[in-house]
Amino acid sequence: MSTTNQHLEALRDAMRRVNVDAVIVPGTDPHHSEYVSDYWKFRDWLTGFTGSSGTAVVTLDKAALWTDSRYFIQAAMQLEGTEFELVKEHIPGEPTVEEWMQHNLELESVIGIDGRLFSCVEANALERFCGENGFMLATEFYPADLVWKDRPARPSATAYVHDEALAGETVASKLERVLGCVEDAGADAMFIASLDEIAWLFNLRGSDVEFTPVAIAFAYVSENDCSLFIDRNKVTDEVERHLKQYNVRVRDYDDVTRYLERRSEHDTVLIDPDRVSDALAAAMPCMKVYAASPIVAIKAVKNEVQIDGTRRAMERDGVALVRLFKWLEENVASGSISEVDVWTRGKQERARGENYRDDSFAMICGYRDHGAIVHYQADDESAYTLKPEGLLLIDSGGQYLDGTTDITRTVTLGNPTAQEKHDFTLVLKGHLALSRANFPAGICGVNLDLLARQPLWDENMNFMHGTGHGVGHFLSCHEGPHGIRMQINPTPLEPGMVVSNEPGLYKAGQYGIRTENLLLVVEGEKTQDYGTFYRFETLTLFPYDLNLIDLAMLTPVEIKQINDYHRTVRDRLTPFLTPDEAQWLAAKTREL
Amino acid sequence: MSTTNQHLEALRDAMRRVNVDAVIVPGTDPHHSEYVSDYWKFRDWLTGFTGSSGTAVVTLDKAALWTDSRYFIQAAMQLEGTEFELVKEHIPGEPTVEEWMQHNLELESVIGIDGRLFSCVEANALERFCGENGFMLATEFYPADLVWKDRPARPSATAYVHDEALAGETVASKLERVLGCVEDAGADAMFIASLDEIAWLFNLRGSDVEFTPVAIAFAYVSENDCSLFIDRNKVTDEVERHLKQYNVRVRDYDDVTRYLERRSEHDTVLIDPDRVSDALAAAMPCMKVYAASPIVAIKAVKNEVQIDGTRRAMERDGVALVRLFKWLEENVASGSISEVDVWTRGKQERARGENYRDDSFAMICGYRDHGAIVHYQADDESAYTLKPEGLLLIDSGGQYLDGTTDITRTVTLGNPTAQEKHDFTLVLKGHLALSRANFPAGICGVNLDLLARQPLWDENMNFMHGTGHGVGHFLSCHEGPHGIRMQINPTPLEPGMVVSNEPGLYKAGQYGIRTENLLLVVEGEKTQDYGTFYRFETLTLFPYDLNLIDLAMLTPVEIKQINDYHRTVRDRLTPFLTPDEAQWLAAKTREL
Repeated sequence: MSTTNQHLEALRDAMRRVNVDAVIVPGTDPHHSEYVSDYWKFRDWLTGFTGSSGTAVVTLDKAALWTDSRYFIQAAMQLEGTEFELVKEHIPGEPTVEEWMQHNLELESVIGIDGRLFSCVEANALERFCGENGFMLATEFYPADLVWKDRPARPSATAYVHDEALAGETVASKLERVLGCVEDAGADAMFIASLDEIAWLFNLRGSDVEFTPVAIAFAYVSENDCSLFIDRNKVTDEVERHLKQYNVRVRDYDDVTRYLERRSEHDTVLIDPDRVSDALAAAMPCMKVYAASPIVAIKAVKNEVQIDGTRRAMERDGVALVRLFKWLEENVASGSISEVDVWTRGKQERARGENYRDDSFAMICGYRDHGAIVHYQADDESAYTLKPEGLLLIDSGGQYLDGTTDITRTVTLGNPTAQEKHDFTLVLKGHLALSRANFPAGICGVNLDLLARQPLWDENMNFMHGTGHGVGHFLSCHEGPHGIRMQINPTPLEPGMVVSNEPGLYKAGQYGIRTENLLLVVEGEKTQDYGTFYRFETLTLFPYDLNLIDLAMLTPVEIKQINDYHRTVRDRLTPFLTPDEAQWLAAKTREL
Repeated sequence: MSTTNQHLEALRDAMRRVNVDAVIVPGTDPHHSEYVSDYWKFRDWLTGFTGSSGTAVVTLDKAALWTDSRYFIQAAMQLEGTEFELVKEHIPGEPTVEEWMQHNLELESVIGIDGRLFSCVEANALERFCGENGFMLATEFYPADLVWKDRPARPSATAYVHDEALAGETVASKLERVLGCVEDAGADAMFIASLDEIAWLFNLRGSDVEFTPVAIAFAYVSENDCSLFIDRNKVTDEVERHLKQYNVRVRDYDDVTRYLERRSEHDTVLIDPDRVSDALAAAMPCMKVYAASPIVAIKAVKNEVQIDGTRRAMERDGVALVRLFKWLEENVASGSISEVDVWTRGKQERARGENYRDDSFAMICGYRDHGAIVHYQADDESAYTLKPEGLLLIDSGGQYLDGTTDITRTVTLGNPTAQEKHDFTLVLKGHLALSRANFPAGICGVNLDLLARQPLWDENMNFMHGTGHGVGHFLSCHEGPHGIRMQINPTPLEPGMVVSNEPGLYKAGQYGIRTENLLLVVEGEKTQDYGTFYRFETLTLFPYDLNLIDLAMLTPVEIKQINDYHRTVRDRLTPFLTPDEAQWLAAKTREL
């Protein structure tokens, strides 16, 4: 019997003992993190599937796993030989989790979930589903606690203070702004579960999770009482002193539920129903205001210190990329470089830079048709060896103390075809048009999204991911509330927001193209009759591959825009380069 | 004492008799019509203000009128010498109706409204406002019935059948589709108050209201009972036979409340809370499903017969415009043509066309700085006399049995300046870009809006109205649910929808520019990898003023687009023109 099927049997034993007929196992943690520490990877343990997105459902005689198109191939391989059937999300004809349960469960079946892993919104939807279908929902079924014998320890990395000289704002000021919003919302306290919100609010960072420098914690803040719930061993003397300065009381991570249960029923607590678990919300006897977290909106607008730090981090990131791509160009002909080698080398080059702490996500390095798999992750088995031909897509980023980076470049390793150049130039035209945008205050990402897509739409093509996501400051590489997407998101773009600009084009079985810079929203012209205009400052510093440009497709405005950008890249990076590297960059940024 | 102040005193007497402390008098009718018949113009009678948009509030010692920027000048003039203070909507520092009442009413004041004139949404908002402020809301205070002595009769124009050969769908088929949606929404009946929905559903038209060919009526539809509430004298034998054919029972307009009160409490009725009055919704003892009217969504998608009819109507409209603009050009030098004369002549020229019934709205004819007043309405007092110089903006349209038109052209009457040409060409570039759009299924107007604005945004300018509105088929010139605006409207554009494309630029004190065509959404390419694409077919047929184009600002693509469009205009209109007219049009559509 496979390990997975043994784990399944253990789970079913536990289910039978308490009369649970079905269990939903999500891939998240109690903080709804994008990257989850091993301690909460119960779904991985149970199914053998290790993708970042996926939900398992287990009944007494069936088991299924849902994941999205990024992971169809990986999931099929990892589930092979197990009882788990793979269900493809967002594919017509494939059932949703709910439809599958409607089909496979009898009336009065009990569905068990670990309510600590489901947001209020998710739990409410499930509750409604169960009500409508005659199922019962048990929210205190904790399968990981019951059957996961060799469970890893909860991460125990120490937290550290994020220097005010890097953050640009004191904890006192942040607390005042956040509590002002809490009061405006009609509440007198706020409970916070999201790790990046907590890290931002308390100028704290940690190393509990890959790619995002956060510490596992909860927080409860009000005028009289600010409490941080965190494992004591994470709290160094420095952190303790720092928190004390702002009257933040350190409490044990495991005490959070008990603490919440003891809140007064006269208190009114603001809870973001998408970011706080149903279990913890239910623990509070207080009155509740369910509203979007004000921290998400506040931290999206970067201050001058954060912006300046990011500009410096971008210089270091650009230097690392010059070294990576130069190395690649000089060694690809040897036939000894694989996609994984590029990943490793990229990490090494970034790590040479000041203030580097980690990559901001797992590099996507896709050669040829691997580039068309939008979230392709090379591993030793799958990795192609690079040759001096074809397209290579590299999407990567770094976590520096003074800023988070995220950049995608697509380059030719030799002899680009006319079709490759045509497609690359189409994507570049969209990318350039978005960068050039000048738009009135109040405009949202959805108003601008078309700029990045129009050259593709004109040829009846498109890319099926968002054009841009918000980016944290030495925090999550993906953050809200804004974004640039085809889908409607009613958050206006405001000066100080950072957003990515990453149109792409993916030709399955052939190649993928994506070009990504990070943009900063800045104030433009103030007019009498038409209000204030905003525009973008490009933060990212690395040339586009001139060998992939079909010059005949560009307008004079676009050519000037590329030349101006390349001049900036050259001017900003050259002081940090060796003569050799500077020469390489000069060639890569030659005038068109 | 002015007439207005006499009317005010009469109202206050009535208020005192029943202890009402304040009255809100909206400018609408019980059908929430855009154009209101005289019978419901109580606000006009009370205040003397005749603009299409405005709300009056009267207390025992104060009176105020709210209107928007279109009417600031007109309202100031019409309210002069009355007790009414003018409050400017959407101007910082000016109070809203609610703020004004908070300031001017004491605790426990009774606010009276005619609940038949407030939608469910509006009445709920008022109810909440009163609750929060310690006021009481009386929704059965009918001031027009109490004090309007010389009230005009309710309009009594006869209704007529809209031929199936023009509508392209039988009433039976429409009822089946609508009732299908009603059932999908969990209801078994629907109550309809909007005149254009009723006209569409029953293939009926009327002449009760200017510009929109509808008859005053309500309707209640279910599987077993379809009732039309309408004044008996509107119902000709033809209409009676037509309705009988589809088992639609004619009931008296004034019986609607009694009928609704007798509905079973076991019935579930779908009500659009934005389109049905609170009073009528409350009259029904049934269960209610509050949802957007399915008719609005269904009728927005035109069938082949409607589309073909509209194409024919556009030919007649284009011919009328050729004659209007030719006459204008030939006579402007005489110094005898005023803005009002253009309006009159335009109506005459349209009326010569087959199937013409009415204009689709009051022509906006704005010469020089009048053009910068977005909804300028010339009258004998305000009208400028035209001279052979400067810009003239004409926005007009016709109601033809086979289609509704709406077109704006801005022309120079002589010697255009470089600035005028620059601005005209900017607006034209946006207009052309939107017409050229090719976009995937699922895209909403907000995704495309930028196309029309980008040339202006690039120069830190903008226009503050929507880019496009839906257009009915021999029905309302403005209809939903779709549109093209900066603001978010989550309705995807679908083949068969008609939408206007009307960017503009307004320079106060100088001139206004707007260029408007109607577009039809049509199917474009179907692709394997990126889904189906849609594009626009331009329905409107009349040349842009070539004398206002700054050719240096246009791309080859834009020049070709203009030439192609002008060729189509020439080919489609010439067969209906005299040789003289044809020659004029040939010159106006000469190749660039």
